[in-house]
Amino acid sequence: LRIYYDSGVMNGENLKDSLHEIIFEAETPLGKFFDVVLLVAILLSVIVVALESVQAIEAQFGELFRIVEWALTILFTFEYLLRLYCVNQPKKYALSFFGIVDLVSVIPTYLSLFFAGTHSLIVVRAVRLLRVFRVLKLVHFLGEASVLAEALKASRNKIIVFLGGVLTIVVIIGTIMYLIEGAESGFTSIPMSMYWTIVTLTTVGYGDIAPQTVLGQTLASLVMILGYGIIAVPTGIVTSEISRASNNQGSTRSCPHCSREPHALDAVFCRYCGGKL
Amino acid sequence: LRIYYDSGVMNGENLKDSLHEIIFEAETPLGKFFDVVLLVAILLSVIVVALESVQAIEAQFGELFRIVEWALTILFTFEYLLRLYCVNQPKKYALSFFGIVDLVSVIPTYLSLFFAGTHSLIVVRAVRLLRVFRVLKLVHFLGEASVLAEALKASRNKIIVFLGGVLTIVVIIGTIMYLIEGAESGFTSIPMSMYWTIVTLTTVGYGDIAPQTVLGQTLASLVMILGYGIIAVPTGIVTSEISRASNNQGSTRSCPHCSREPHALDAVFCRYCGGKL
Amino acid sequence: LRIYYDSGVMNGENLKDSLHEIIFEAETPLGKFFDVVLLVAILLSVIVVALESVQAIEAQFGELFRIVEWALTILFTFEYLLRLYCVNQPKKYALSFFGIVDLVSVIPTYLSLFFAGTHSLIVVRAVRLLRVFRVLKLVHFLGEASVLAEALKASRNKIIVFLGGVLTIVVIIGTIMYLIEGAESGFTSIPMSMYWTIVTLTTVGYGDIAPQTVLGQTLASLVMILGYGIIAVPTGIVTSEISRASNNQGSTRSCPHCSREPHALDAVFCRYCGGKL
Amino acid sequence: LRIYYDSGVMNGENLKDSLHEIIFEAETPLGKFFDVVLLVAILLSVIVVALESVQAIEAQFGELFRIVEWALTILFTFEYLLRLYCVNQPKKYALSFFGIVDLVSVIPTYLSLFFAGTHSLIVVRAVRLLRVFRVLKLVHFLGEASVLAEALKASRNKIIVFLGGVLTIVVIIGTIMYLIEGAESGFTSIPMSMYWTIVTLTTVGYGDIAPQTVLGQTLASLVMILGYGIIAVPTGIVTSEISRASNNQGSTRSCPHCSREPHALDAVFCRYCGGKL
Repeated sequence: LRIYYDSGVMNGENLKDSLHEIIFEAETPLGKFFDVVLLVAILLSVIVVALESVQAIEAQFGELFRIVEWALTILFTFEYLLRLYCVNQPKKYALSFFGIVDLVSVIPTYLSLFFAGTHSLIVVRAVRLLRVFRVLKLVHFLGEASVLAEALKASRNKIIVFLGGVLTIVVIIGTIMYLIEGAESGFTSIPMSMYWTIVTLTTVGYGDIAPQTVLGQTLASLVMILGYGIIAVPTGIVTSEISRASNNQGSTRSCPHCSREPHALDAVFCRYCGGKL
Repeated sequence: LRIYYDSGVMNGENLKDSLHEIIFEAETPLGKFFDVVLLVAILLSVIVVALESVQAIEAQFGELFRIVEWALTILFTFEYLLRLYCVNQPKKYALSFFGIVDLVSVIPTYLSLFFAGTHSLIVVRAVRLLRVFRVLKLVHFLGEASVLAEALKASRNKIIVFLGGVLTIVVIIGTIMYLIEGAESGFTSIPMSMYWTIVTLTTVGYGDIAPQTVLGQTLASLVMILGYGIIAVPTGIVTSEISRASNNQGSTRSCPHCSREPHALDAVFCRYCGGKL
Repeated sequence: LRIYYDSGVMNGENLKDSLHEIIFEAETPLGKFFDVVLLVAILLSVIVVALESVQAIEAQFGELFRIVEWALTILFTFEYLLRLYCVNQPKKYALSFFGIVDLVSVIPTYLSLFFAGTHSLIVVRAVRLLRVFRVLKLVHFLGEASVLAEALKASRNKIIVFLGGVLTIVVIIGTIMYLIEGAESGFTSIPMSMYWTIVTLTTVGYGDIAPQTVLGQTLASLVMILGYGIIAVPTGIVTSEISRASNNQGSTRSCPHCSREPHALDAVFCRYCGGKL
Repeated sequence: LRIYYDSGVMNGENLKDSLHEIIFEAETPLGKFFDVVLLVAILLSVIVVALESVQAIEAQFGELFRIVEWALTILFTFEYLLRLYCVNQPKKYALSFFGIVDLVSVIPTYLSLFFAGTHSLIVVRAVRLLRVFRVLKLVHFLGEASVLAEALKASRNKIIVFLGGVLTIVVIIGTIMYLIEGAESGFTSIPMSMYWTIVTLTTVGYGDIAPQTVLGQTLASLVMILGYGIIAVPTGIVTSEISRASNNQGSTRSCPHCSREPHALDAVFCRYCGGKL
């Protein structure tokens, strides 16, 4: 009897645990299946939102899109409630980044029920596009991201310094170009001129605004060469950090005899003292 | 007599072997000559297809182009049959990537014989452009490609993660820009807006679609700086892998005891068997 | 009494010292507070100058902008005088780079008082935009910049050689493109053609000038691929230097005998004095 | 007497040697002065050629330009003859790269004397622009270029493979885009379509030709991301080689006691065995 009671308790716990394993982890076959289905559903949802905005397609398949949208919304709502149920600390999950994204990506469709006016509908449609953020969950599925994330985190400070320098350059060159070119060439204000500077410095170069005077074109040439050159800085920072992170992966092994490191991951003997690792 | 018979057998085998050596390998003078002739023929074929599409040139040299095309097609057909004959496992070759490319690049010209209607001819002309894929054979001639290929293969996983992140950014920024700018600025739909995001993020910047509102230009500036910055990531990944691959090449020191390599230049003992280097 | 006198002297010195600590350094809470307030004021001043240039905003908030501008100008004047007072060598400060920037960024607003003609006012407005250079002080607040600065300084020579090479290419290709394309395609003169070459070589690509002839487009293609390729050079230079600078940071091992550094992580003996590490 | 005779001989040799030292080398003060004067003259000559092509400036200063041009041409002719005189092997110099550049950069001005027809004059003007190549001599003045040159030479093979791959991609994508977009979007022929592919792949993006169809824009997006990604390859190659070249600069010192390397350039003692280097 005690066994039954235990298993009864365990059944309750089992259900919660199993659900947790299926929903939050991806090691078991069921958990993997759940994750893949969820990924497909999210992608489908994003594609529907994107195609809805194309008028020709919306006119033909609008009805179908509405049905798919409601089906997915109900599915995602159910999933959200299940997550709240099976997680150990529901409050912590609800307030976590992905908890908020999960909730926000479900609300817009329901809102469109209560505020059904023609004009407000458009606004609701706008809000519901936030559902696209659900795609952020994609990161869940990729374990390789950590090396990149670490390298980026390590180079964060240097990149902030770099961005500060770039913005200073943008402000100064933006004002100078505004003074040189003026409104006739499209440099109608300093913010617009700063926009042009960013377009040029990053080598995007739309061509909607372009310098017309000789002085302006000379300065623009300098900005281009500057932009061409300083792209080397973030690249250098990140490359250096990725190299270090990749090397460190293998270099945390130290010899038990002479304590020296690093040793490659496939080394069997210490390359300094010859002792067995 | 047995010798004659043997040599007869060997002659048959010899022919096949010699052909195999000439067609599939490039060590012997004849094999090298064959490869160079083939390369020139492929390049000529590509140039003819390209020039045929220029109306002014087609009007003047159309007749010549047709002759060259048929001559090359017959040559390539003969070459394809020879390959099938002299290879040991014809089926395996026929189903290999280059086997299929060899076949597909020959078919279009023959198809144009049987389906000679005016309208269908245009379609056939389209299909025969697939012959361009023959150029892929160029890779055969370059042995240096392996280091690059290895470095790219090693960084494949990281690049997939990176591309996933970029696409997520494209979807989110594409929808936000669609909401901000709307159809007047050319952002007619979310897919079009995503196209603009890719054009901007990769710093291509055609300028056929460009943000007009202040908010849109501000977000566009952020996208440009982001694109300018994240180009550092693939560069960092590939650079790190090429450095590693090149270093591994350089340390061709092999252990005198167990013959395994590579060993770092400053290693004193073999890291596999512990023997003194 | 002597104590009072001393403290009197010390009070005078104290005031100067305290002010120096607050204004020129950022270690004490007050010094940090001063720096943050100054940073906010500078940013506010830059934003006001930028928004003033937008006609619609100027029409509405012009009055407010004028007040903020005068308030900030008086604040910055007071700050400049305080700096002159509390620094040990006022002359050296006044002639230093930031001393001149501090002075120049204050003058334009006062100039607008004495030269109040309608036409000259526009010119004055132009000069006062130089105040933007005050933003350069931002560099004060970022200590991380030194690694980047060192890497850039170390690669300066190589970058000058690289820029010399790029400019030579620009001159030669600019003249050739001028001869090929001529004025009809927008290549109206050699300087204009050199401007196009820089726009193309740096992959900016405005599209306001683009080659129309077949020969011009072929050469342009070569320039693009060249530009695409040589961006690797500054990147390689800077990456190599940042890697080296970062590694040198890591090896902060100093010799116990002669105290010199750096030493590589795998070094056993000091490379300067030969002592055991 | 013998001394006089000797010194007479030596005077003759001295003149040649001194001239050689002044003209071909830059160690002595006179040699440096000569090089700087020559550099200024070349720059002046390039600037005159560039400004002559601007119609407004040519109309005003045409006379002056003609005088400067003739003065410089005579100076360069004299310099060329002096080089021929004082060099040990005049034939070798005359046939060397810079010998030919020196000669070719002098000829056009003289040609304009004999062929003075109005029409031919324009042609002559075209030829004389070749004088710009004289700028190539700039490379003389920069000793730092060797590290870069070595790194580029070492990565030559990998870069050729890379360029081959890029051109194959350009041919294939060019033909596919021609089939998808057609003449309405500006893809009038396969060569034009290949030009567009290069413009896009190198992220230049003029915008004079841009895809209009959904399929074309999708493929264009892929090309952009591809171009954004493969820029990593040349960068990786060159960075890896520059790192190696920079490291090698310091690493050719080997310890006379234990023969191990590398040692930094500023090391005094071997870091492995402690022996004096």
